[in-house]
Amino acid sequence: MKICRYQTHADGPVLVGVVRGDLVHDVTAVAQALPALRWPFPPGDQFIAHLEGMRPQMDALADESAGVPLSRVLLKSPVANPGKFVCGAGNFEEVLAAGGHPRRLGLLFKMTSAAAGPADGVILRWPERTTFHEMEIAIVIGKAGTDIPAAQAMDHVAGYCIGLDMTMQGSEFPSFGKSFDTYGMMGPWLTTRDEIADPDALDFRLTVNGKDRQVDNTRRLVLGIADLVEHAASVMTLHPGDVIFSGTPPRSVGPVVPGDTMHAWMQGLGEMTVAVTGGSGRKTPLDGMEP
Amino acid sequence: MKICRYQTHADGPVLVGVVRGDLVHDVTAVAQALPALRWPFPPGDQFIAHLEGMRPQMDALADESAGVPLSRVLLKSPVANPGKFVCGAGNFEEVLAAGGHPRRLGLLFKMTSAAAGPADGVILRWPERTTFHEMEIAIVIGKAGTDIPAAQAMDHVAGYCIGLDMTMQGSEFPSFGKSFDTYGMMGPWLTTRDEIADPDALDFRLTVNGKDRQVDNTRRLVLGIADLVEHAASVMTLHPGDVIFSGTPPRSVGPVVPGDTMHAWMQGLGEMTVAVTGGSGRKTPLDGMEP
Repeated sequence: MKICRYQTHADGPVLVGVVRGDLVHDVTAVAQALPALRWPFPPGDQFIAHLEGMRPQMDALADESAGVPLSRVLLKSPVANPGKFVCGAGNFEEVLAAGGHPRRLGLLFKMTSAAAGPADGVILRWPERTTFHEMEIAIVIGKAGTDIPAAQAMDHVAGYCIGLDMTMQGSEFPSFGKSFDTYGMMGPWLTTRDEIADPDALDFRLTVNGKDRQVDNTRRLVLGIADLVEHAASVMTLHPGDVIFSGTPPRSVGPVVPGDTMHAWMQGLGEMTVAVTGGSGRKTPLDGMEP
Repeated sequence: MKICRYQTHADGPVLVGVVRGDLVHDVTAVAQALPALRWPFPPGDQFIAHLEGMRPQMDALADESAGVPLSRVLLKSPVANPGKFVCGAGNFEEVLAAGGHPRRLGLLFKMTSAAAGPADGVILRWPERTTFHEMEIAIVIGKAGTDIPAAQAMDHVAGYCIGLDMTMQGSEFPSFGKSFDTYGMMGPWLTTRDEIADPDALDFRLTVNGKDRQVDNTRRLVLGIADLVEHAASVMTLHPGDVIFSGTPPRSVGPVVPGDTMHAWMQGLGEMTVAVTGGSGRKTPLDGMEP
């Protein structure tokens, strides 16, 4: 099943849709089955947490709904309430082959306020600095767990989407440049795990303004999908709606500037177009202290 | 106002209390005024988001409640649903005085699944590795905002608590070792901003097994409270319940081992005792690749 969050116009409510071919079928009503909760909320995205049980009703609702062409909707982040973003780093074969310091293979983080979907675009808030695209597979956790062995890891995966782990370059600590609002781009929708036979063998392609930038395959990840889940869960408890960005092939990353258009496609996960715009470039208290 | 989350016994519900002197007064009923919400949830801790308006009722409820001695309750994290943990790094005077690389002053992150309170203790999940205590002031955001100038920053602060930004040492990326479950220790309670005349001039003291480890004052922070809020908000949107750990004096950090007892006190913010225990030490897929 392919599940998106979308608007039919920019001022409209965010709806839940099932994608079939080129049509989006409105299944928003299914979310009424989710419990109304008072603070404190349980950890995890409550839609993802209950997704398995809601699928029959979502299918029935999609059958009854006429469908709107995908080209006419605004796609939002497929995860509404992500609890954390974990980012693989140095996780493609050439990093190890080059004899890179093992410190280069590991996990970085991204603040969840960076979550965005294709219709939001990527906003370069500090446009005087350089931001790179990092195309990745994004793993959406479906079931809570910690200390999860790789052999059981896939039981904890709800599905996948394309992730653009946008990263500002510079001398700051490495997670910093990943955490600007809109730098956690996810889309076009959540593809459930059962639809992807082998997530460790997916072709993908990112173009900027129509020119190839990142053309690769997830089989070249050093830590594959199950290993990434195991490694993250060896440190922390994972909850439904947590997202692990796999890491990107480092040699093919590159800059984007305001006015650019990115197009990302991954085998089985769909494609999306993401506009890049410029931000305010406000100064911070650290500006005087930076090199 | 001093607001805690607590249990009267380990299997009991987590209650909301107002602390007056040595007594905790149960004001849990105030949370019934918070709206029951369905997915998707708005960002931010809904209790902190509505705190200002609930204070009169909390005072009234505290007046009516007999009070339980603090020594008989189990204190939990004062923030139930933190949205993000931002951590100042290299943020004490001696880092700049030593001519340290400016990269050493900046922001790191901690995953919110690390949130814990004194009664949870700190669990050293990889006890074969070294974990340091980093005592800090933790700033709890009260009002959403982004691009917040320092001059307006205090309007966005709900209050403060003591933060123990526990950090495993090692060759991993720096935010990694901060994100183990229980490594985001906060307590003993949230002290609202109006109770602290100058958060940039607070004495604090951390002992381990009764011996002084970190005895210092927040006036030695390079980026003070308002500057930290400005800097974080220059990158990302802050929401109620987001927490900024200030950074710690780097020369006085030190290791803890299972069986240790930490005691932390900060002027105006109270004191708390935190036990350190050992974890399972499970291996991860990266173990074979680490130096």
